[in-house]
This record gives sequence, structure tokens and C-alpha cells, in this order.
Amino acid sequence: MTSLVEQILSGQRRAIARLITHIENRHSGAQLILDELYLHTGRAHLIGVTGSPGTGKSSLVNKLAKVYRGQNKTVAIIAVDPTSPFSGGAILGDRIRMRELSGDSGVYIRSMASRGNLGGLALAVDDAIKVLDAAGFDLILIETVGAGQGEVEIAKTAHTVIVVEAPGLGDDVQAIKAGILEIADIFVVNKADRQGAERAVAALRAMLELGHPSAHQVVHHGQLMHVEGVAANHQPESAWEIPVLKTVAIKGEGIEPVVEAIGQHFSHLKESGELTHRNRARLLDELEHSLQRELMQQLLSQLPPGFLAKIIDALAGRNLSPYSATQEILKFGKI
Amino acid sequence: MTSLVEQILSGQRRAIARLITHIENRHSGAQLILDELYLHTGRAHLIGVTGSPGTGKSSLVNKLAKVYRGQNKTVAIIAVDPTSPFSGGAILGDRIRMRELSGDSGVYIRSMASRGNLGGLALAVDDAIKVLDAAGFDLILIETVGAGQGEVEIAKTAHTVIVVEAPGLGDDVQAIKAGILEIADIFVVNKADRQGAERAVAALRAMLELGHPSAHQVVHHGQLMHVEGVAANHQPESAWEIPVLKTVAIKGEGIEPVVEAIGQHFSHLKESGELTHRNRARLLDELEHSLQRELMQQLLSQLPPGFLAKIIDALAGRNLSPYSATQEILKFGKI
Repeated sequence: MTSLVEQILSGQRRAIARLITHIENRHSGAQLILDELYLHTGRAHLIGVTGSPGTGKSSLVNKLAKVYRGQNKTVAIIAVDPTSPFSGGAILGDRIRMRELSGDSGVYIRSMASRGNLGGLALAVDDAIKVLDAAGFDLILIETVGAGQGEVEIAKTAHTVIVVEAPGLGDDVQAIKAGILEIADIFVVNKADRQGAERAVAALRAMLELGHPSAHQVVHHGQLMHVEGVAANHQPESAWEIPVLKTVAIKGEGIEPVVEAIGQHFSHLKESGELTHRNRARLLDELEHSLQRELMQQLLSQLPPGFLAKIIDALAGRNLSPYSATQEILKFGKI
Repeated sequence: MTSLVEQILSGQRRAIARLITHIENRHSGAQLILDELYLHTGRAHLIGVTGSPGTGKSSLVNKLAKVYRGQNKTVAIIAVDPTSPFSGGAILGDRIRMRELSGDSGVYIRSMASRGNLGGLALAVDDAIKVLDAAGFDLILIETVGAGQGEVEIAKTAHTVIVVEAPGLGDDVQAIKAGILEIADIFVVNKADRQGAERAVAALRAMLELGHPSAHQVVHHGQLMHVEGVAANHQPESAWEIPVLKTVAIKGEGIEPVVEAIGQHFSHLKESGELTHRNRARLLDELEHSLQRELMQQLLSQLPPGFLAKIIDALAGRNLSPYSATQEILKFGKI
């Protein structure tokens, strides 16, 4: 009998599903397996697809998957269900999706829900991406509803982010409202056979001309990033011209140009050095979190019982300032 | 001549403005002054007001300020301008505001913009709140556009969060889209003399009946929170029934019930122990960040030159796993 790691590396679906369930349940054994799998990651192209409800994200993702299958590439889809108990959309979308793509062993589909903890969901999706990457999928499509903190975080881990709009949802452009404009590498106006499609395209183009803060300005980098020799050199991302494309996903219209733009963006990332830069920035982020966790654990183990509670009492009572509190605690935490 | 700290404690406007500008510019001296001021904070009631553009947040905030002034309470307003270069709303709103509230020494108004870094803006707003709290303002109203990560973070630092809706903006309820539903303590349907107001109220009430994840589930707490005796005991927040109120802010209609609800929510926070719990959670968060920063600085100072870059190279080349990388680095970081 082979190990779970070997089963995943050879792409066995049941093993993949089992590990992702462990990840969702925060099973303690999952981290060890992920650590082994890590050495086999870094090959997949991660594509985030986000947009307001009703824009037809799921249909677009399905049609993209079909085009990639026609090119003989394997595709994994992660459908991220936001926290809201008011949404039943993901379940319905899944059923339609299953009918369209089922029976193809080159496609793997997984829904992930938040269970009331958006931060936890972002971490779980990150880990699930690693599993699917190690399992050898060429493309991983991460579909999220574009609204709120967690979804933006998830979309940010992708190499290429597609923001989907649709005419007739009450506003010309929903991305402005949802605050997801800054993360787009490609805009798609879906349902382009509806009235108002041209206006939506024009509004997006006008905004892009006004200037568009790149994803990089929004990402927060920690202390490790500033150590000499750690960050990769790269050309500024401004060289990428964000395209605005029209599709009618449900009829399969306009899908190929989107696939082409996705490929061009990936080439651009590689050639500009931006891919190396983003990957290193992501690794540094993860390493920093893991070091912080360990250092804090070491520090906490050195504190006398009740010491921290007393410090917090003094802080809460405004008898101690934050700086003095930090210094008092660090007396026990000299490296 | 008195020090900047003394000038702020006595409420001098020019001193307040100067320090907030230093905070925005990340002037290194600001942190020392904030540390001193901290001992004089914790008295103000922090009220977040958020909602989509066009809901009339600014008018509502102005009218709330007027009612509080009638009760002889002092009011500070922080108008947070989101990052988007496409929005000019904040400036226009400010001009109208100035006309309505100018000349009253019991009101202080400050706009803060993001300059392309939402994380940095949230920290700066947090610090500005401390300045205004130490300066003795009874109420601090923090007005943000409800969309995107940074704004939700800013609204979360408030004691009481008001989410403002308006009929006729294309959707029945914008809060669902923007992902800010979970942070509301009070809903206000403004422009309630317009068609569709009753429908918006009904939609919000229906959603509240379906169940409403409390702000607490969304907030992420770090390692310190789990140390014994550190977190405060408190009743679950579910006891608070989120009201849905109608206003026509521009005509001054329905403002008193909002002021009343704000007061009731603050009493509820105090009586349930929730206020103590939230304040401690916030202090722990800040302390954890400051400890992490110091520990990481200590660790980095111990690493041989070029060591971290080599580790990152090995990680990026998939020759080293994240767990092993952490252990290699921590050999230099024993507390």
C-alpha cells in the first residue's frame, strides 16, 4: 500500500479529496503531508476568477476548463463559497457544473466553504492549491465571489486574476463597489449579448485610462522582504496592458480570446521576472508567519504564570503604555 | 511652552492636526507621543459609519453630530477616503460638511486618505482615533465607504458599527454585495422618503431573521488570546437585537432614534462585558504585533549575512520544505 503523499503525487482523486477534507478540518497530520508535497509544487498556473453574484463566473470557468481540456491540459477548479448563510448559489452552480464536466478524469472540482471564518478559509484554499499543484494539474482555477476581505485575499494568491462583470446588474461596473478593481489582470464583461454591455466595457476602459494601481501596491510585505538579497529583481508590472474582453459564456462565445489573454499574462509574468518576484514574496510571507508563530510560542513558554494577564490588566487600565508593555515582556524573550 | 502631548490633552486643534499629519507621514517621533497619549485614552465612544457611495453617509454623520452637540457632547469626525483614484466624493462631502458644522469648537473634522496603501491607512486611522480620544472627545465618528478589505478593518475597530443603505441604488441591499453585513450593529435605511425604502427595510429584516454571524466570528485572534487569564469573560453578543431604522438625513428626519440606538448599543456592550472583551482583544492584537516585530528584528540580527537569501533560494527551487526552512533559521533564534 502506498502512502497518501504518493497517492496524491500520482493524482489519485480519493487521496486528494481526503487530504483537502483534513485541511478543512484542520487535522494536525495535514501539515506534515503538505510539507512533503511542497517539494513537488510550483508547476501549475493559478488563475483566480472573481466578480459579483450574477455575473456568470461559474459558466465562464466551465467553458475555460473545456477549452483547456481541448488543448489536452488538466484542470482543477476550486469553487470558494463565501461565509454568508444567505447564499445558496454555490450549490446550484456545482450541479450545473457537474453535468457539464463530469466523467472527464482530467478535471477535478472541489467546493470549499468558510464555516464562519474567512481567515481560515484563505489558508485552507492556499493549502488545497498546493495539493492540486503537487497532484500535477496544469491549471488551477479558483472561483470566488468578489466581495469582502477573504475573497480578495484568496484571489491575490493567484498568478492571473480575472474580474468578471455583467451588464444589467444595477450598476455599470460592480468592481468599483466591491473594491476588487486593483487586483484585476484581465477584465471580462460576460453576458455581452445583453443591453449595456458596450457601456460596461467603455466604463472599464475609461477607468483603466485614469490609472490603475497595480496589485503590488496593495499587498503588504513583512520584515523578511527587506533583508538584502531576499527579494527578486523584477520589471515593474506596469508593462502589462489589462485587456477588457466580452464573452457570452453560456453560449460559449468569446472564450478563446480569454484563454489567449490568460496565456499571454502568464508569459508576461515569466518574461518580466514578475512571476519569480511574486512567488518569492509569497514564500517570504509564509516563512515569516511560521517564524513568528514559533518565536511567539518560545516567548510565551518563558513567561511566568499570570505575567501576561497582569500586563494586559495594566494596559487595559491605562497604567502601562504599549511600548513599556512590550519591553517588560521582552525581558523574558532575549534571543 | 507646553509639549505637544500637553497641548493635545488640553484639546488644542492645531496640535491635534499636526500629530495626525505626522502619523499619516509615518514620522518616527509620532509613536513616542502616541505611547504617552495612550495612558489618557479609553473614554470615547467609537462609532463606525459605513455604506456604499450614494447612501448619504456624510449627511447622516453631520446630523448625528448636531444631535450630540445639542446634548453638549463633543464630537470628532474622521472621514476615511478609500484608495480609489476614481472617487472625488470625499472632497465634495467635506465642503458641505464644513458649511454645516463650522465654527463649533466642540466638533473636530478630519479627512484621511489612503495614498495607495490600505493596510497603512487602517493603522493611521487607529492612531488618529487614539489622538482624538486622548484629546477628550466624547464621540468619535469614523465614516468609511463600505467596500473592500481596508474599510472593513477600520469599521471593526469601532465599538458600534452603523451600516447605511438607501433605496434605488440598483439593488435592494448593497451590504450583501460588499461583504459588510457581518459587522453591522445598527442598520439605517437612509433616503427613506424614496420609493423602495420599505422593501429595503423588509429585505434587511428578513436577512437578520435568517441568522446573522456576529462580528466576533470574523475577527481573527492571535496566540496571546489563548494564554490563560488574558481574555475577559463575557456574555455572547447574540443578546443584541440589531435594529433597522429609517432616516431622511438631509431633512433631519429619524435622527434621534439612531442616536438612541447608538446609546443603547453602548450600554449593552458595557453591561454584557462585551466592551471589556473587545477592548482587551484589541490590546492583545496590538501587543502581539509589536512583540512579533521586535522578536523578528532580534532573530534577523542573529542570521549570518546571506543566510536568509540562501534559504529562500532553496525554498523557491523546491529543494527545501517550509518546515525545514523554519527549523534551519530558528537554530539562530533560540530564546
